[in-house]
Parts: sequence; C-alpha cells; structure tokens
Amino acid sequence: MTEPLIAPLELPFQLFDVQDTETLLQRQRFSEHSRETLDAVLDTAEKIATEHFATHNHKADQQEPTFDGQSVSMIPEVKAAFDAYCEAGFLAGRADFDAGGMQLPETIMTACSGYFMAANPSTAGYPFLTVAAANVIQTFASETLQQRFVPPMLTGRFTGTMALTEPHAGSSLADIRTRAVPAGDGTYRVKGSKLYISAGEHELSDNIVHLVLAKLPDAPSGVKGISLFVVPKFRLDAQGEPAERNDVALAGLIHKLGYRGTTSTALSFGDNDDCHGYLVGEPHQGLRYMFQMMNEARLGVGFGAAMIGYRGYRLSLAYAKDRLQGRPTGAGPDTPAVPIIEHGDVKRMLLAQKAYTEGAMALCFYAARLVDDVHSLPDSEEREQTRELLDLLTPVVKAWPSEFGVKANDLAIQVLGGAGYTREYPVEQCWRDNRLNPIHEGTNGIQALDLLGRKLWQANGAGLQVLQQRLQQDLAQMKGEVCQNLSAQVAPYLQQFAELMTTLQKDLRTSALPVHLTNAQCFMNIFSSLVVSWMWLRQAHGAERRLAQGADSEQHADFYQGKLQAAAYYIEWELPLVSRDFALLQQTNTTCHNMKTDWF
Amino acid sequence: MTEPLIAPLELPFQLFDVQDTETLLQRQRFSEHSRETLDAVLDTAEKIATEHFATHNHKADQQEPTFDGQSVSMIPEVKAAFDAYCEAGFLAGRADFDAGGMQLPETIMTACSGYFMAANPSTAGYPFLTVAAANVIQTFASETLQQRFVPPMLTGRFTGTMALTEPHAGSSLADIRTRAVPAGDGTYRVKGSKLYISAGEHELSDNIVHLVLAKLPDAPSGVKGISLFVVPKFRLDAQGEPAERNDVALAGLIHKLGYRGTTSTALSFGDNDDCHGYLVGEPHQGLRYMFQMMNEARLGVGFGAAMIGYRGYRLSLAYAKDRLQGRPTGAGPDTPAVPIIEHGDVKRMLLAQKAYTEGAMALCFYAARLVDDVHSLPDSEEREQTRELLDLLTPVVKAWPSEFGVKANDLAIQVLGGAGYTREYPVEQCWRDNRLNPIHEGTNGIQALDLLGRKLWQANGAGLQVLQQRLQQDLAQMKGEVCQNLSAQVAPYLQQFAELMTTLQKDLRTSALPVHLTNAQCFMNIFSSLVVSWMWLRQAHGAERRLAQGADSEQHADFYQGKLQAAAYYIEWELPLVSRDFALLQQTNTTCHNMKTDWF
Repeated sequence: MTEPLIAPLELPFQLFDVQDTETLLQRQRFSEHSRETLDAVLDTAEKIATEHFATHNHKADQQEPTFDGQSVSMIPEVKAAFDAYCEAGFLAGRADFDAGGMQLPETIMTACSGYFMAANPSTAGYPFLTVAAANVIQTFASETLQQRFVPPMLTGRFTGTMALTEPHAGSSLADIRTRAVPAGDGTYRVKGSKLYISAGEHELSDNIVHLVLAKLPDAPSGVKGISLFVVPKFRLDAQGEPAERNDVALAGLIHKLGYRGTTSTALSFGDNDDCHGYLVGEPHQGLRYMFQMMNEARLGVGFGAAMIGYRGYRLSLAYAKDRLQGRPTGAGPDTPAVPIIEHGDVKRMLLAQKAYTEGAMALCFYAARLVDDVHSLPDSEEREQTRELLDLLTPVVKAWPSEFGVKANDLAIQVLGGAGYTREYPVEQCWRDNRLNPIHEGTNGIQALDLLGRKLWQANGAGLQVLQQRLQQDLAQMKGEVCQNLSAQVAPYLQQFAELMTTLQKDLRTSALPVHLTNAQCFMNIFSSLVVSWMWLRQAHGAERRLAQGADSEQHADFYQGKLQAAAYYIEWELPLVSRDFALLQQTNTTCHNMKTDWF
Repeated sequence: MTEPLIAPLELPFQLFDVQDTETLLQRQRFSEHSRETLDAVLDTAEKIATEHFATHNHKADQQEPTFDGQSVSMIPEVKAAFDAYCEAGFLAGRADFDAGGMQLPETIMTACSGYFMAANPSTAGYPFLTVAAANVIQTFASETLQQRFVPPMLTGRFTGTMALTEPHAGSSLADIRTRAVPAGDGTYRVKGSKLYISAGEHELSDNIVHLVLAKLPDAPSGVKGISLFVVPKFRLDAQGEPAERNDVALAGLIHKLGYRGTTSTALSFGDNDDCHGYLVGEPHQGLRYMFQMMNEARLGVGFGAAMIGYRGYRLSLAYAKDRLQGRPTGAGPDTPAVPIIEHGDVKRMLLAQKAYTEGAMALCFYAARLVDDVHSLPDSEEREQTRELLDLLTPVVKAWPSEFGVKANDLAIQVLGGAGYTREYPVEQCWRDNRLNPIHEGTNGIQALDLLGRKLWQANGAGLQVLQQRLQQDLAQMKGEVCQNLSAQVAPYLQQFAELMTTLQKDLRTSALPVHLTNAQCFMNIFSSLVVSWMWLRQAHGAERRLAQGADSEQHADFYQGKLQAAAYYIEWELPLVSRDFALLQQTNTTCHNMKTDWF
C-alpha cells in the first residue's frame, strides 16, 4: 500500500480540534450537512486525488503539454482526472443547492483541495481556476451571463481562466493596453495580448471562458479605468452551446520551471478584430471584481504552497525512516547503520518542515473559516469584523506559506541528499512546482506592500483590532503547561509589536514612510511570524486538550506530542528571527532605500 | 555586445585590493610571474569562458547527455569547450614548470575558474575533476603511477573522477562494500558498485581515470580500512597508451534536477571479475588521500556556488535595470513607468544577492590565498598555522556559499517575477544547478558537524586562535568611517562568540554535547556569519582606501560605494539573525534533539 497523501489524523485534527468546524453545521447555510456528510466528501476527495491525480503527477511533469500550431496535446491522464473531479461534483461544492451545488463550507472545500494539491497541483489547476472564474461571473455579471456561462462551468463542460497579465505589465495592472470597444449591440470587441495565462488553452473542456481585463475607449487612466469581460473561446449559440470560434488565439505555450502540467499561455485577443467580449457588471469596475477572484486565488495559492510543502515533508519523512546510514551515537562501524531520522540534523530538517507546512495549513484553515463566517454569520457587524480580519490576513496567507513551502521543499531535498537531487525521486518536482507560488497572484513583495501600506490601516485598523481580540481570547483559554510556557515566550514579541505599531503610526506622514515601505518585508516577517506562532499555539492547545482526555486519544498520543514539539520548534527556533526585523524597522534602516542603481 | 560574465572591476578588486595577491609574486614559487602574466591568464580564461562555455550552458541543460547502452552522447559544444580549456593549458595551471605546468597561484587559478563556473558549471565539471584527481595521484601515488597517468591528465587526453559513493553508502564511507583483492602481480582486482559519480562516462577524452575507494581483504572495519585505487577505463599498454578495455561498466546515467551537462553515473566495477586497479600509496590510507581531493573539492564547490549565485545576481540586475513597471513614488498612471530597480523591495533583493555572492567570493579568495600560503610561505611554523586556519575554514567555505548561493538564485528568480519562472530566462537554471552544492562533497549538515565536532578543537583550537589574531589585525588597520561604524556593530557579536566558546568548551564532556551536535547548524550560522562579516569588512576597507585615493579611483567611485553599501547590508541585515542561534546554543535547546521518530 502506498503512503496516504496526508497523515490520517492531520485533517480531522485541523478541522475538528483546531477549527471546531462542526459549529458551522449550526448555521442556516450548512444546516443540512452533518459530520458524516462532511467526512464522506473528504473521503471522496482523498480517493479521487489518490487514484486519479497522484498517479500522473510525475508523468505530467516529464511530458508537458505541447502545441503543434493547431491544438494543445497533453497526456490523457489529465483529462481522466479532470473528469473524475467533475463527476464527483467538486466544481459545484461551494455552490448553492439551488444551483445544483453541495453548499459545503469553504473550510471543507479547502480540506478537499488539500488532497488534490498534495497529489498533483498542475492538474488541480484546471478545475480550481474554473471554480474561481465561475464565482466572479456568478457574483458580478448580469443574470444573462450567469445563466449562459455558470452552469456549464460548474459541471466542467466549460473551464475558466483569469487573463490579467500583459507582456509589458505584470504586477502593474494600471498599465494594461488591452482595449474593448462597444460593438453597438451590447457586446464588445476586445483586442490585446495577455501573457502567463494559466489553463489558457487545452482540450479538456468544450469551451474556455476567459475573464479578461481591458480598457474601454473612455476609460480613466490607471486602475480606475479597467473593466472586466467574459471572452469565450467559442461563442455560444442561442441554446448556449459552443458554436463559432471566437477571435482568441494561442500565440504560444510558455515553458516553465515547474507546474508543467498546467498550460501557461500567451493569448492574442482580436487579431482579426472580431473578438467578442461581454462586459461584467459596470464599466471601470473590473479591478474590484477581479480582486474577489484574486483574493480567493491568494488564499488558494497559500494553501497550495502549504500542501506541496507538506507533500515534500511526508516524502522526506518516509525516506528518512527507511534509509540506513551512519551511527550518530559514535558506535563502531561493525554495529548496524541506523535510519537517518535518528541523526540530529535530519530531525531538525524534518521538524522545520513539519512546523512550516502544518503551521501553514492551520493558517489557511483559519482563513477558510473566516470566509465561511463572512458568508454565514447571522450578525452583520460580526460579518463585517470578520471581513476586515480576512482582508488583513490575506497577504499573509498568500505570502507566508508560499515562502516557507519552498523552504520546506528545499529541506526535503536536503534530507534525501544525492537522491533528492535526482529526478528519480519526487521531492525536486515539489520544489520546482512550489517555486511558482511566491510569484503569481501578486508577488510576495507586493503582498508585503499591501499589508504594510494598505491592509494594516484599512477601516482605521479594524482588522488588527479584531485580530488582537481573537488572539487574546485564544490565549486566555490555553491552560495547558506547554501552551502556558510557549505563550510566555511569545509575549515579549507581542509587546514589541505594540511598540512597533506606535512607531509606524507616528511615521505614516513623515519621510520615514518610503523607507518603511522599502523594508516592508521586515514587517511581513514580523507579522506573519506572530500570526503563525498563534496558529501553532492553537494547535498545541488542541493537542494538550486531547492528551488530557486519555481514552481514544491515548492511542494517538504520538501525533499530539508531535504537534507540541513542532509548536515549540516554531516558537523557539523561528519566531526569534524577527528580532532582526524589529530592530531594522525601529531604526528606520536606510541601507536598501539609499542604495543607488549605479552602485550595483 | 553581451554583458561580461563578471563585472570588470570585481576580480581586480578581490584579487589585488582585498587579497593583495601581488605579494605572492615575491615568493620563490611564483617569482617568475608578474602582474602582467597574471592579468594575461585571467583574460584568457574570460575569453574562453565567454566564447566556448557560456554559449552552450542553456543548450547543455536542455539536451542532457544520453546513453544508448553502448556509449554516452552529448552536444558537440562540450567537447569543443573542453578542448579549448585544455589547449590554453589550464589543466596544468597549478602544476610545476617542470611538469609542463604554469605554476600559477591558487588564488589566480580560482579567479580563472570563476569565469568558467559563471559561464557553464556543467561543462567546467570535466576539467575541474580531472585536475583534482591528477593532484591526488601526483601527491600520493608511486612514481610509476604518476608517470603513467598524470601527464595525460594534465593535457586532457585522460580525464579523472572520484568514485566514493555507493548505492547504500553516501555520507557514510565507513560502510562501503567495494572490494579490492591482490592479483599477485602488484595489481588488484576491484569489484563493487558506485553511484552519483560525476563525469564517470563520456567521450571527451581517450581514457577516464577513476579514483576508487575500496577495501582490501584484511582491512580493518570502518574508515580505517579504506584504500585508494587508480582504476582506468582502458588499461595502458607499455607505452602508456590506452589499450584493453578494463572491466568498468556504465550501469546507467542519473537524471538530475540541474547540472545536467555533467554526466552523473552509476558504475559497475568487476562485473566480470577482471577490473584492474592500482593501489595508491599505502593500504588503508585511502580516506586520508581522498580527503586532500575532497578538501580541495570543497573549496571548489563553495566557489562554484558563489559564482552561479553571482551569475544569477548579474542577470537579475540587468533585467531590473531594463524592465519598466509601476511607479514606486506614487506618481499617477500617466507618468512613465520606471525600471523595477527603483522599487525598494527589488533593491533589497539585489543588494542581498550582492552581499551573498560577493561575500562568498571574498571568502573563497581568502581560502585560496591560504592554500597558496601553505604551499609557498618560507616559514614552516607560519605554514602550519595557515594550514590550521584553512582546515577550520574549509567547512565554512563549502557550506556558506552553497547555502547562500542558492538563496541568491532564489532572489534572482523573484526579481524577474513570472519571467524568472520560465525556462526562457536563465535564472531558473542557475537555481537548479546551484542546488547541488549544499549536497555534494559532504552535505552542509556534515560540514556543520565537522566544524563544531572536529575542526574547532583540532590541534587544541589552533585554527581558531589564528583566525582571531588575523581578524584583530585586520580590524586594527581599518580607520575609515564606514569600517569603524560597521566593526562597532560586529563587536558585540564577537563578544557573544567568546562567551559561547566558553560554554561549549565546558560542555564538551557532558550530556550537553549530543544536543549541541544536533544543533550544529546554529553554530555554523554564527561562525560563518562572523567570518563573512569579516570578509565584508575587508572589502569595505579596500573600498574606503580606494575612495580616499581620488584620481583614477574616482571614476570607479560607484563601484566602491556599492561595496560599502553591501557591507552595511550584510552586517545590519544578515549578521543579527544569529542572535537566535546564540540563544539556542546557550540554552542547550533540546527541541530537535528530543523529537522522537514516532512523533512525526
């Protein structure tokens, strides 16, 4: 039997001990579900991910999609996996019962996606993008567009993309050049080039629905003049069936370092001036609409990074238990060699991976729960508070797991040593695949700017206030010995954080501001490390509670002990690194800011 | 014109300002050279590297060597480059005039190899391994073996390998199983399997000379029973010409994450019980001999990592100056976009790369100079002191550049953003190529153990004493304002280091020792960060001296200002991270040590 994709106790612990997901069942929206239906959905996800996704992860990397000038070919396993995913109804997992969906909590859908991301992030890309695109159309587009496009996207007959980036404009959407001109019949003609569009071309579905950012002729300059369009590969006939080919062409496939199974495309819209597009919502509001998708995508990127990181951790753990090498106790060469997991430095590398990836998972599940609360809390003020917290945490959820997911995969390679450097073992692919995550959906540098430059101060700092309340509530509940000890170690950093916030607030309107923004990564380090420490305290709390219960927890005592040790590792080994960042920000360090182009 | 592989001022600064390499010309061994001959050699290296090596770096990665069961094929550019390298005499660059060599200092040969490693580390692997193997034979083998094998290796007719690793024994050489039995005629019959042997098979040379670790029938167990053998692919006839095929077979090529142009092989020795081998030196002394090669290789690995890191830095710098995107000053969207180098976080990522890679270069040149001093100092006591310092620094020179070279390449990808993730840009290859360096020639975990568990205490801590004397001598000379300011920032860490050494010395014979060894990476972090801070102070000193000189230095003021800024970056942004490591070691933190296998 193969190793399970995720340790059997991990998701139940994250979902039901740390997150208390069952309380969602009391909300109106989820009241028709039970723990049993949730478990059944998770089991289905595990089964499909294991049988249809994990099985071709390596093959899809070795045999990436090709383009012969006419159509894109890929290994048939991708289509089979996509179909299995669609048939199980996962595309509509979040959708309302009315729309034929399962109306499942985001928390559970996130857990399901965990199996797919651990199994095969490239193939998972196709359905995940489709769900995100359908969600934008469902939320912002006219009823006609909804009716024509959303149902086939929720069954997988159509797939979706987000087409933002242009060759000359990556992070700077203010500069996009794609244009959309009214055709006089309520539709538009779109013209422009887009680059790095994931899933922009393939033969998995009957149609591809591009969500395209473009500018209207009368558009204000910059981000205030961006509109959003639905641009299908095939136009629909009156019955909603794909008919005429729209004027969208694949200019070429991009060959990537990793994530090779997901096509990355250069697309040309309107080469023959006949690319039909349909405006979503109001003119010039496109960026706002797209940001819903982007924010969702950012949570997805963070969680994907966590799971690719976790997969590498589990693979290197299995290797370290199996591979015999050396004798760390200094025993003679005639004694048997031991599994390398008994070497201190290997334990360190495994424990770091555990702390990074399970910490990242806890963070992502926390965010997923916030999404559920935003959608299902009865009290509107509570919903608003939750939304502010979610907004504040979004850059952290995107950036921290993607930074530390790659680090975890780097350590997985190191645990395997020479074997890890070969393509015969799967950890190098994890590392390559994961390297995309600090880049796409807003680079991590942009996340740091977004956090320090915007999210922190949004709504008068409401998000931070909610965060602090919740953190203090959690800390007050933690009576276990390990939690008490660890939270005492976190306390001085929280104090320093309060002092830093005073400094930053004072500096907001001074010449120190651009220096702080240059050093935004320092703030991201501090803030994310404190949030992740909190996430580890929550896990330690869940573990101590279980250990105190005895009975059936006893047989799983090792699992809970591991959680306590990883929490200690994170707080003792990783959190203290931010002392450097506190110092740099408090001294308004100008070394990077003052560096001149000509000095390089 | 293409960008130069290395910034034109960099090597002259490292060699003649920071290292004072010209003083070597006063030593007897190098007295026939002049600054002009040294410069001419460097120019030749740059020319060959630029014209013959850099030109197929990408192609060799995309079209890796293949094996059809009979022979290994690779793109013809590799052979052309290898031949150009040999024809220029670089294989014999270090060798005595008597042996047809150029008798050049290690410092200069290291600088030459910098061009080749920046241009194409895979192709450079073939000559570099050959030189190292020839050196072992020259130093330890009988005169007969020397005469038969060394001359053709120094012209490139024969190439060399080091065959240590076996499928079941990577880092643990005590467990090798390859056997060598006396044949009665002074030769031996070798039998066993070796894995991950770089350059183990190819068609670049007329013969391949494997240096094989194996055990004699009467060998003591463990590392004390290892002998070293010359095992050629073709046995030599009486005239020293390759004749009969020896019983060495290529079992297969290993497919790697990077460094794809260098074949990595699984080799079978003696499948037909007819593999002839020739004992090098005395029986059971093989590991000691091989360690000369390994130590040399470790310096080479560190420097290679520095140069691949540096190449990525230069590529990302050129991109950042060229790519227009956004307006960090908050100017309106109708103003022109600026080069991304003007964004604060991009400056940070470039400055970090500069600090890592030029710091690593300075460290490697320092080590190269020690090698020269060991070989050319007239005073035997000084030679001995130098050797102790070199021994102490070797694990640092191997581990720190290889850790931070990969980090630099990671930042280079991030600077390029989406473009950096594609195979159309060269930085992703740098990242993949460099990832080998923390693994081979002793993993970085082993380097940390070697440093803390052995080198630090060797010869009663003589190496550390020499280091401290030299550091203090250097500091005493630094009168410039920047150096004074930066060394004041380093001083408290030196104080903490002294306190830590007191603790560690006390703990040597206590139960704290295994805990410290588990945490050896913390010690490596501290020690290497202090050494690199020293290397940056030396560079800052060189820069301040130049800036004070005026005249022709003035036109290069930007270059020297950059050095000062990078020194400040390293000491303000990187060195403070070791506060975490000091705390963990001082508290004898047991979190990793106490982690149990079952808790994972």
